[in-house]
Amino acid sequence: MRAVDLIRKKRDSGELSREELDFLVSGYTKGEIPDYQMAAWLMAVWIRGMNRAEIAALTEVMLYSGEVLEHSEIPGKKVDKHSTGGIGDKTSLILAPIVAAGGLTVPMISGRGLGHTGGTLDKLEAIPGFNVNLSLEEFRRVLRECGMGLIGQTAEIAPADKKIYALRDVTSTVENIGLICASIMSKKLAEGIDALVLDVKTGSGAFMKREEDSVRLAEVMVETGKRMGKKVVALITDMDQPLGRMAGHSNEVIESVEVLKSHGPADLRELSIELSAWMFYLGERTKSVEEGRRLAESMITTGQALEKLRQGIRLQGGDERVIDEPERLPKARFHIDVSSAASGYIKATQCEQFGTALAMLGGGREKKEDKIDHGVGLEFHKRVGDRVEKGEPLVTIHYNSDAKLAEAKTLIAGSYVFGESAPQEKRPLVRRVLGA
Amino acid sequence: MRAVDLIRKKRDSGELSREELDFLVSGYTKGEIPDYQMAAWLMAVWIRGMNRAEIAALTEVMLYSGEVLEHSEIPGKKVDKHSTGGIGDKTSLILAPIVAAGGLTVPMISGRGLGHTGGTLDKLEAIPGFNVNLSLEEFRRVLRECGMGLIGQTAEIAPADKKIYALRDVTSTVENIGLICASIMSKKLAEGIDALVLDVKTGSGAFMKREEDSVRLAEVMVETGKRMGKKVVALITDMDQPLGRMAGHSNEVIESVEVLKSHGPADLRELSIELSAWMFYLGERTKSVEEGRRLAESMITTGQALEKLRQGIRLQGGDERVIDEPERLPKARFHIDVSSAASGYIKATQCEQFGTALAMLGGGREKKEDKIDHGVGLEFHKRVGDRVEKGEPLVTIHYNSDAKLAEAKTLIAGSYVFGESAPQEKRPLVRRVLGA
Repeated sequence: MRAVDLIRKKRDSGELSREELDFLVSGYTKGEIPDYQMAAWLMAVWIRGMNRAEIAALTEVMLYSGEVLEHSEIPGKKVDKHSTGGIGDKTSLILAPIVAAGGLTVPMISGRGLGHTGGTLDKLEAIPGFNVNLSLEEFRRVLRECGMGLIGQTAEIAPADKKIYALRDVTSTVENIGLICASIMSKKLAEGIDALVLDVKTGSGAFMKREEDSVRLAEVMVETGKRMGKKVVALITDMDQPLGRMAGHSNEVIESVEVLKSHGPADLRELSIELSAWMFYLGERTKSVEEGRRLAESMITTGQALEKLRQGIRLQGGDERVIDEPERLPKARFHIDVSSAASGYIKATQCEQFGTALAMLGGGREKKEDKIDHGVGLEFHKRVGDRVEKGEPLVTIHYNSDAKLAEAKTLIAGSYVFGESAPQEKRPLVRRVLGA
Repeated sequence: MRAVDLIRKKRDSGELSREELDFLVSGYTKGEIPDYQMAAWLMAVWIRGMNRAEIAALTEVMLYSGEVLEHSEIPGKKVDKHSTGGIGDKTSLILAPIVAAGGLTVPMISGRGLGHTGGTLDKLEAIPGFNVNLSLEEFRRVLRECGMGLIGQTAEIAPADKKIYALRDVTSTVENIGLICASIMSKKLAEGIDALVLDVKTGSGAFMKREEDSVRLAEVMVETGKRMGKKVVALITDMDQPLGRMAGHSNEVIESVEVLKSHGPADLRELSIELSAWMFYLGERTKSVEEGRRLAESMITTGQALEKLRQGIRLQGGDERVIDEPERLPKARFHIDVSSAASGYIKATQCEQFGTALAMLGGGREKKEDKIDHGVGLEFHKRVGDRVEKGEPLVTIHYNSDAKLAEAKTLIAGSYVFGESAPQEKRPLVRRVLGA
């Protein structure tokens, strides 16, 4: 078998077999196939596409490029959630303790933020001392002890994905459903889980802006997971405006704790409970999703989820006092309001721009090497459908440097679309559930 | 400007400007843009294509990646011919002396054989001592002295093409009209010529099997050359069977000398005269192509072209005695006939297979590093339309090792397609002329 022939096959819209994909992926991971051949193949895949069988096979060979965890020594089902990313999307910090408190195990391997979206690892690192770089042995110990562990991708987990993702980033081959699916699912299935809930965002703050694209990605991921013997459902959820009222790392930790204390914004609470409910149901902890919702709610109202978060932070070396003393989190020195330039009803937001503004202020990365300022953040005072008077504050910016402040303010102010009347109907937070 | 954005633009079927193409090509030539980005871009180009303006711009930036020769110290017009390659295609060795003897200058920079086709440089190197690696200064001296020079691509000539071609070869991005055009034309226009005659082969022994593909490539090359102020015509010529009776390096030198001695096969003589005639006409040596034909014929019959070849060989360090003593060329030790397994009329040949068989016997390269055995060759006894009896020899193989002899014999025997009756019409050797 020769890489050049497999490139030609995909270039000419052919279908690659599992053996051929394995040859390419393992050859590339081992350094036997050079970057330039993989790059040509990735571009051919981007343009020609892959069918469902190819996507499943690619996912599988990427999964088995590294270690596939196995937690049989821990009783009960292992479940996880993956989100495709958005603004203010902090549900992992809420649902992991809910689901662990409810009796399932959540071995969560997360990513870092890139571009306009945040990453769970970065948010956790806002907590002083929190160590996301556990060895696999330490990870297992934490999981055994408290039922949840939150770490980053290790060198052992899906090394093919790590290498291929870096190459896609610099060859304009990122936004392809088959490649996205294989990248996400190979990492998630390596966690050693029985079930996975996918939160596929759709709207102006998501990678997939159009609902039909989000649905297609969701369908492919659900099918791929099921082909590999896992229980998988996908929720298509709204990302036409930020989730909750807070964006930025410290800010999001604070808001997550609020939800676990039975406070916090309704949309964030609703989605966290919904995702937890599906995790309980797929993990066979409850007989129905409805029962799962009730269990999730009780984990919040009884304070058990909050205690689980406290335990999790402690076990991963973090300062658990942040739960009651949020001032222990990094905090920006200054704040300023962005006021509305018009009166009217908020019809929509260009949600991605909030993420871009936040990154500009130091709360996100342009390049992988960039450092994150955990203290900067955005506080959203208005939601779609709200009536706003001219001069009323829309967003409070928490910032440390005014280098790009003016630019960020302009972006944020320009993100709101106003109308004369209130929108006719409220769009549901969970648009569709696939794979149930 | 960023390479990743230009890759995305072509991926999404966009048109690149001259500045953008220059950024990519000169960045790549200087090593600032890595192989993997160029590979992704090449695949996007292969699939999405380029329009005429892009092809012309790419050709131009590749041309100016290196030195563009200029021979104003030599009086008269400089002309050249380029062939897209085929089996037994040895016209360069014949027409260069004809045209130089006729008073024009032929600064010919040629390539080596790869795959099933031969290369002019390799054929010249069958002549003991012949040096194709002249410096540009030596090249100019030879040109001044005898009006023709035959060398390989130097490091100064179109370095972008050299680097890009090597990458295309290993990323399955070779067979694309825009990329082929830019590769050929950037090298040819760097020779410092006023006019170029293109011999675009079509048929079972050509890279372009279908006439419409050959015509499209020819049209693009003619237009690109004209955009850059050169006189260019393209002849679409037959490659459904070998040109002449000989293939293989020593064999082809011998047959070329035969034509210059007024012998040799009719088709090879006809095409050599036709191409020379167009070179005379475009080089303004004659007022018409017809007059060019007469001049070419007279260069043969008076022996002036043969003397020019003798001088050219001598000036490039070769043993000119091969002209009268062909036994001085490398010769294979053994020969064997491939006999016809059937009786009937030859309707067609799978001409590419002859080249593959020849390469298998050592007379061609699979990889660039492979050594060539100049002595091996094929001698064709029958042409399309000929009546053949079972057992009659079709081809004589000249070989040195019987390692792959059986395989080569099978390929050659299987290349002939027989019919009950003679083909109705003889297809012309020159199918069309474009750009005249």
